[in-house]
Formats: sequence, C-alpha cells, structure tokens
Amino acid sequence: MSLDNAKRRQLAKIRQRTLPSIQEFVSAILDGDLAMLSRAITLVESNKPAHHELAQQIVNACIPHSGNSIRIGITGVPGVGKSTFIESFGTHVTSQGHQLAVLAIDPSSEVSKGSILGDKTRMQELSTNSKAFIRPSPSTGSLGGVANATRESIVLCEAAGFDIILVETVGVGQSETLVHSMVDFFLLLMLAGAGDELQGIKRGIMEMSDAIAINKADGENIRKAKMARREYANAIHLFPPNANNWTPQVLTCSAMQKEGLGDVWNTIDQFVNQTKLNGWFEKNRSKQSLRWMHDTLGSFLTDSLYQNENMRQIIREKEYAVQHNELNPYQAAKELFASYLKMQS
Amino acid sequence: MSLDNAKRRQLAKIRQRTLPSIQEFVSAILDGDLAMLSRAITLVESNKPAHHELAQQIVNACIPHSGNSIRIGITGVPGVGKSTFIESFGTHVTSQGHQLAVLAIDPSSEVSKGSILGDKTRMQELSTNSKAFIRPSPSTGSLGGVANATRESIVLCEAAGFDIILVETVGVGQSETLVHSMVDFFLLLMLAGAGDELQGIKRGIMEMSDAIAINKADGENIRKAKMARREYANAIHLFPPNANNWTPQVLTCSAMQKEGLGDVWNTIDQFVNQTKLNGWFEKNRSKQSLRWMHDTLGSFLTDSLYQNENMRQIIREKEYAVQHNELNPYQAAKELFASYLKMQS
Repeated sequence: MSLDNAKRRQLAKIRQRTLPSIQEFVSAILDGDLAMLSRAITLVESNKPAHHELAQQIVNACIPHSGNSIRIGITGVPGVGKSTFIESFGTHVTSQGHQLAVLAIDPSSEVSKGSILGDKTRMQELSTNSKAFIRPSPSTGSLGGVANATRESIVLCEAAGFDIILVETVGVGQSETLVHSMVDFFLLLMLAGAGDELQGIKRGIMEMSDAIAINKADGENIRKAKMARREYANAIHLFPPNANNWTPQVLTCSAMQKEGLGDVWNTIDQFVNQTKLNGWFEKNRSKQSLRWMHDTLGSFLTDSLYQNENMRQIIREKEYAVQHNELNPYQAAKELFASYLKMQS
Repeated sequence: MSLDNAKRRQLAKIRQRTLPSIQEFVSAILDGDLAMLSRAITLVESNKPAHHELAQQIVNACIPHSGNSIRIGITGVPGVGKSTFIESFGTHVTSQGHQLAVLAIDPSSEVSKGSILGDKTRMQELSTNSKAFIRPSPSTGSLGGVANATRESIVLCEAAGFDIILVETVGVGQSETLVHSMVDFFLLLMLAGAGDELQGIKRGIMEMSDAIAINKADGENIRKAKMARREYANAIHLFPPNANNWTPQVLTCSAMQKEGLGDVWNTIDQFVNQTKLNGWFEKNRSKQSLRWMHDTLGSFLTDSLYQNENMRQIIREKEYAVQHNELNPYQAAKELFASYLKMQS
C-alpha cells in the first residue's frame, strides 16, 4: 500500500515535470479539469518566456469557448471582510446552481514580486465546494502584466465552465481601475462608521461602483450600517449618472451571519438583465476587448525589446552610462531604440 | 504709428509661422529668452510627430545645460489654495534671488484632451514677476506622454537659467506618483479640519511627502491649523522611515497672509543640504534618470507603432473586427504585432 502510494507520487511528479501539449491543456480545460486549469493559469502568470508563449496559445484556443459568464469585480480595504464575504457570497451563488471562479489581481506583485496573503486557506468552506474554484493571488509578476494575466485567467475559467467570475482586488490604488476594465459589475465593500479616510476609499472608486455593500451589518452594528446605507445612497445621487444608466445600489449585509447576500446577488442579476437589454453589457465588453487588444499589443512590443538577450546586455550598458552621468537619459533611450530597430531588420 | 503696429504684428505672425531652427531655439533658450522657451515647451507638448521630433532635438541639446536646480513637486486637492500658495511662495523664493519656473502636470489631459483650469490668470502677481516663468497646464496630450513632456520642460527651464522648478499636480490620483518620480522634494498642501476624506488624500501621498504644509493658517483657523500640525506630525512618525533618512516636516502657513512661507523654503533648503551630504540627492536623480530613459524608450516603441500611417490603418481594421466579434483581442494583437515586425524589416 505504501509502495503504491510512493509509485503514485512518482508518477504525479513525472506528470508535473513534462508539460502537456496545447491540445491536451485545451481539451482538459474544456472538460472542466481543475488541475489542468490551475496549471494553465500558472503558465499565464509565469515570467518565463517559453511558458508565456505556451500560455498564450492555450488562451487563444480557449477564447472561442469563453465570454459566457458574469464577471464581478470586488474591492474594499483590508479589514472590510472581503474573504469572508467572498466565502459566504460564493456559497450562496453556487447554491443557486452556478459555477464560481475566484481570481485575485495584485498589481503590487509586479513590483515587489513578493508573495501575497491571498491564499485558499482564507476561504475554507468555498475551497472544498465542488462548484467553486479559488485561485490564490499570483506571487510573481507575469510577463504580460497583471491585467493581461487576469484577463487570460478569466478566459480559461470561462472555458472550463465557470459562469460566475469574481475578481478580487488585492492591491490598493490602481488595481480597482484595472479590475473595472475587465468586469461587468463592480462591487465595493464598505464598513459603517469606519470613516472614509480609514477605508482608503477614493471618490473615484465609489464612482465606478455598481453597488456598495456595507458589510458587518450584524449585532450592534445593524443600526449604524443602516444609517451608513442611507448616507451613501444620498451621496451616490450627487454623482453624475453612469454611462450604463444604472443607479448604483447601496445594500447592507453580514457575510459572517450570511445575511443580505441574496440581495447582493439579486442586484447583480438585475444589473445584468437591465444592461443586456439596453445594450450596455455588450458595448462594455466590446470596449474592454479593445483595451485588451491594445494592452496585449503593448506587452508584445515591450517583450520584444526587454526579453531579447542581446538587447538586455545593451540596456544594462546604457543604464550604467546613465547612472554614471556618461550619457543623458534621452540619448540613451534613442540609442537603445536604434539598436532595437537594427535587431528587427 | 498704427501702420507700424500693423507691420510689427505681421512680422510677429511670420516669425510664429516659420519655426526657428534647433540651433536658434537652443541659443535663445540658453540666453534666457522666455518667448522661445515657451515655444519650445509647446513643441514638447505637441502631438504632431514633426514638432515632437524637433522638440526632442532641442531638449537633447539643452540637457548638458540642465540639472542645476531644485525641483519641487506640489500637490493638494482643489480648494487647498494651491495657486495662492504658489503665488506667495514663488514671490518669496524670487525675493531670495532665485529664478522660478512653475510647471503643471495633468495626466487627465492625456485622456480627455480637454483644456484645464491651470492658466496664468490664477497667479497675477507671479506672472508679472520678471524672475518667474509660469507655464499653463498642457491642454492636449503630448506624443511622448505627460511624464516625458514634463521632464523635458524641466530640462528646458533649467537650461534657460531657472534654478527653482515647481511642478504642480493638476490631476488627482496618478499624477502625484508621476511628479514624485521627477522632483527632489515633494510638498503636500493640506487644510486643517477638512477631514482627510474630503481632501482626497491617500495615505500613499502622505508617505511620499517630504513636508506637509497646512495652509490657510490665519485668523480663526490658526488654532485648528496648529492642532492639525501636531496630529500630522504624530501620524508621520508612525510611517516607516524614508529611504532618504529625512524626517518629513509638518508646517503651517498662510499663503493669503504670506506667513510661514519662509519656513517652508528653509525646510526645502535644509532638505537639499542634508540629502546632498548623505548622497541621496544624486542617488535619487540617478534613479529618476533611469526611469526617464525607460519611459522615453517606451514612448519611442509605442510611437513607432501608433504613429506609423500604415499601422494606423491596420489597427483601425483590427479594432473594427474585435468590436464586431470577428476576431478575438489576443489574436488581433498578435496579427498587429506581426504586421509591425514586418514593417520594420
């Protein structure tokens, strides 16, 4: 028995070592094979050019099978209860017969290349739910940039049959705009009485939200949460109307007590129905596709320069010269660009 | 007399029409000719490829004559009294024998291409000061991006003899990080008792500030301002120490009453002395030069694709195909990149 186990582990290791072909990846993903989905996302997030290349071919083959989902962005400062909310909300959504994938986007990982809190252990209930797939945050910067990596992961999850995609922002600041550029619905989690400044919420983030859910509306907090709800609802009316003609909703919920989650889900459902009717849903996706195209093109361009071994050597030389005041930054860039063009021809 | 005036106007018009040569621009700028400096900055901010090309050659020729200034970034939400502060502070600085240039950076202009409030009329006293040069905010997106345009404008102003450069942020959000990446000293203006959320100040902006000046510390506001000063000073001590070993200072001032401006100036002076001694000043500039080099290289790359007439046609075709679901964004980007490479060879 123990020998069998050892053998099995060995076989698994071999399987891990040899990379499946594109076709193997794609058909496994379309079959809903979560292990292969995970491995494909790892390739998407990889910073190795060979992995990156393979990932893009898998994604490209999966695109025709993608798009048929509701993409929801979720943000909120640390402490707002994001993980608990996703856990409870996700459980509610899957109980309605949906298949849920949870992704995280973390622009800071691109800079710091550090590991991130967002791991499965935060969502114990959801991670054992057969209808849910939780993907821990990427811990290193992917070659094509976080935005592209997340877009590509969405495609893979959709191809694997997930019809609800939650994209959680991990970083604070830029990530909200990024997520907003790739989801259908944007949900902002807040707390009552914590003060906007404490919640680090910029006006801009409130303005891009389709709904605000005031979490932790339980126990003694209920009254405060209801008051905050009224205040935010009033504040939102002062904002200029959204391009999608949707009036952002303000709700209260308790992820801990599993209350109010149905309201959040119904709001999203209502939003999708309304914006599909008025054409915004498709229009928004089409706009997002254009941005995706330009971002991808930009990353191809950058990669063709920065991933080229010869260029890398020249870049290091110019960096040295600039740092030692032997060359001005503009001239250095000009010479680097000339080298790049020469390499292409 | 009126005929002479008409003639003069006509001549001026002709001068405006025919663009001076690079050499004419450069020698005029080095002579401190403000009209020519203005025109050169207009070229820097232009979105016409020919102007952009000319501008870059002028900048390149001015770089050896640049760098000998203190570059100060200033931010603060609308209502904090930024214009009045720059007016009073600028007057103080020029009274100390300095030559001051005021530039504005506005990332929103890149997107909206709209005109911006930041014009000379805001600073009436300073705009008639012979030792000051105020450059209204760019109203259109420049080809190389706002960051590069501002860096290049700094170079031109320094070459023209300005030894203090103020870079004012007009947009809110990303512009602070941009400005921070090109100045020696970063000053945050705040108000007492307005609440951080109202001031739209993110923690990150406070953390990158070398000094916070609480403005409008006059009349009944003095007590509140002093209290706020204490609070911010305490808050700042909770932040991790800056890489430059400088403890950010919190000051109060009244731009309206022209009080406390000497303190702000002395703080900057002290900062410059200290960071020049400990090596940070040069180290920071060198780091900024590297970023400048990479940003410029990036803009060369993007321009070589997006400014190419043939490419533009192909891009429009692909955009159409993506918007009409005839082509997926990834494939479109791939085909665009292939066309680009083909054009280079």
